[in-house]
Amino acid sequence: MRAVIMQAPGNVVVTETERPEIIEPTDAIIELAAACICGSDLWPYRGHDDADNRHMGHEYVGTVVETGSAVTSVKPGDFVVGSFCISDNTCEICESGYQSRCVNGGFVGGTQAEFARVPQADGTLVVVPGGRPDDAGVLASLLAASDVLGTGWFGAVAAEAGPGKTVAVVGDGAVGLLAILAARELGAEKIIAMSRNPQRQALAREFGATDIVEARGEEGISQVKDLTNGLGAHSVVEAVGTQQSMEQAIGACRPGGHVGFVGVSHDVNLPGGLLFGTEVHLHGGPAPVRRFLPDLIDRILSGRINPGKVFDLHLPLDEAAKGYRAMDERRAIKVLLKP
Amino acid sequence: MRAVIMQAPGNVVVTETERPEIIEPTDAIIELAAACICGSDLWPYRGHDDADNRHMGHEYVGTVVETGSAVTSVKPGDFVVGSFCISDNTCEICESGYQSRCVNGGFVGGTQAEFARVPQADGTLVVVPGGRPDDAGVLASLLAASDVLGTGWFGAVAAEAGPGKTVAVVGDGAVGLLAILAARELGAEKIIAMSRNPQRQALAREFGATDIVEARGEEGISQVKDLTNGLGAHSVVEAVGTQQSMEQAIGACRPGGHVGFVGVSHDVNLPGGLLFGTEVHLHGGPAPVRRFLPDLIDRILSGRINPGKVFDLHLPLDEAAKGYRAMDERRAIKVLLKP
Repeated sequence: MRAVIMQAPGNVVVTETERPEIIEPTDAIIELAAACICGSDLWPYRGHDDADNRHMGHEYVGTVVETGSAVTSVKPGDFVVGSFCISDNTCEICESGYQSRCVNGGFVGGTQAEFARVPQADGTLVVVPGGRPDDAGVLASLLAASDVLGTGWFGAVAAEAGPGKTVAVVGDGAVGLLAILAARELGAEKIIAMSRNPQRQALAREFGATDIVEARGEEGISQVKDLTNGLGAHSVVEAVGTQQSMEQAIGACRPGGHVGFVGVSHDVNLPGGLLFGTEVHLHGGPAPVRRFLPDLIDRILSGRINPGKVFDLHLPLDEAAKGYRAMDERRAIKVLLKP
Repeated sequence: MRAVIMQAPGNVVVTETERPEIIEPTDAIIELAAACICGSDLWPYRGHDDADNRHMGHEYVGTVVETGSAVTSVKPGDFVVGSFCISDNTCEICESGYQSRCVNGGFVGGTQAEFARVPQADGTLVVVPGGRPDDAGVLASLLAASDVLGTGWFGAVAAEAGPGKTVAVVGDGAVGLLAILAARELGAEKIIAMSRNPQRQALAREFGATDIVEARGEEGISQVKDLTNGLGAHSVVEAVGTQQSMEQAIGACRPGGHVGFVGVSHDVNLPGGLLFGTEVHLHGGPAPVRRFLPDLIDRILSGRINPGKVFDLHLPLDEAAKGYRAMDERRAIKVLLKP
C-alpha cells in the first residue's frame, strides 16, 4: 500500500510499504476514506522534532476491514472515526474523561496511508451511524473530529467556555478556529479571535468569533482587556504551543479565569511567579477526543456544525509533499489527503 | 505603639513606631488581639526577598477602634477577622470569588504590631458573631483563619478535594497541615501527608491525614502512586513554593487531576512539556481568604475545627525575634504573637 513517510525535515515522500496487520487481539485495521496533515506534523517537518522515516498521520476516518479476536464493538464494514489517542475507554483514567492518558494508551500513527492499524479498537473507534456519508463535506467534518475539532473542543472545555463567558483564542490554525466553533457551541457570549490573517479571520467569524484582535504580545493582551472591561477574558484557549503564545494566553485571562492550552508545547517555560501572580486556572495537553466524539458526530450528522471547512486544500495522497509545503508556508489552513 | 520591623535578613526588632491613622474613608484601624509570623515572612528573613525595614505581619484578629467615613459594615468595638488580601468584595473579580485579586485590592501589612490599618474595611473584614472569644484556642483559630487556614483551604478547593477523592499534600508547614484539615472537612476519602517530621506528622494525623509519605522527589511520587492504584492522587496541594515541591506535586497527581498550589513561588520554572504531558489542572496563587471566611468562622465557633493548634509557640510581641528564629530553624510550626 502507499503511505506518507517523512525521511528528514522538509522531505516527505509517498512510498509503497507493507499493509499493516493485526498484532494484538484488540486491534482493528481500517481502510482510510480520508486522512490529513496536522499542524503538529510541521514540528518534525521544520526540524524541531525528529523526523527520521516516520510514518506520518494520526487523524483518520475510514472503514473497518479486519478486527482482532477480542474486538466486539466494531466489525468489518463499519464506517468509523477514532481519536488520535489510543484508549481502552474502560480504565479509571478513561472513565474520568482522560482517554488521552489511558493506562493502556498511546498514539495512533501512520494514517496518511491507504490502511492503518488502530490499537484498542473498542475504546478508540466510534461507529458513524448510517455508515459512510455521501457528502464530501460531512466526510471532511468527521475527519476533523478525529483531532482538530476534538482538540479545539477540549481547549474550549478546558478553558470553561460557556454561557455568559468571553472567550479569547490564541492561534488561528485549524485547532484555534475550531476552538472558536466549540466556544460558540458551548454558548459563549463573546469570542475574540487573535489573528492577523484575513482569510482565517473570515473563517473565525463564520465559526462564531464576535471580535478580532490582530495584535500580539502585550499589545494583544491590552486589546483583549479593552474588550473585557479591563479584566481579561474569562476563558482563553491557547492553540500554538510557543512561549509567546502561552504568555499571551495567560496574560489575556482574568484572575480566576481559565486557560486551556492545546498547542503542543515546544520550549515553553512558565515562571511559577507568573502563574501564582495571575491566578489563572491552567489545564491542557493532548485532547481526550474520545470523550467528545459521540457528541461531535451527532452535531456533524445533524448539520449543526461544519468543521470540515478548515480543510481548504484537498489533495490526493500521492501529493502529500505539496500539502506539507502549503501548510508550512501557511498557504493552507489544513490539508485533506484522499488515498 | 510597638511594631515588628525587619531591618535586614535575619534581623528583626520590636520598636516604637507611629500608630497608623485613617487615610482613606474606606479604612479601619484595628487593635490587634493577636498576630503571627507567616512562613512567607521567612523569605525576606532568609534573604530571598528584600527585607529593608519592612513592617512585618499580614495576619490579624482584633477590635475595630476607628473607621473611615465611608465604612458601613464594621464599627468601633466590633471584633473582626480579615483576609491578608485587601478586597472591596463588590467588584466583578471579587464576586467571582477572587478577592485576592480585587481591582481595588492589595495586601494588608504591618499587623505584627499593636494597631494596624486595614484598607477596604467593608470588603476585607468580617465581624465575629458574639465578639471577642474568651477561649484562647478559639482566638488562635480565628487568627489562623486570616491566612494559613484560608490559604490551606483554598489549596484544597483549588485541588478540588472532595468526597471519594484521594488528596496528597506537599509541605508540612502550617498551610500544608491546614490543607489536610480542609481536605477532611471537604470530605476527602484518603489524605496523604508528605512529611518527615514526627511532630508535624502527628498534627497531620490529628487534622485528618490517613497516610504519611516521608520520601520526597521521585521516590515520594512513587509512594503516592503505590497508595493510589498506580495512578496518582486526584488532588494535590502544594504548600511550599519551590521547584522541587512543585514538581513533586505535579508528579504525584493523576492525569486529569488537580494541583492547587499556595506556596509563594520562588525561582520556579515549569516546562510547558511537563504540564502538557501530565495533563493535570493547575491553579494557585494568593488565597482569596475572604471567600471562605464566614464559613471558616462558623466552623471555628461551632467547635468543629481547631486550626489554632498550628500555633505551637505563643510569645509576647516583644519577643518576635525569638519567634522568627524558632520558625527559621523549624523548631516551631507557627508562632502566635500577643501585643
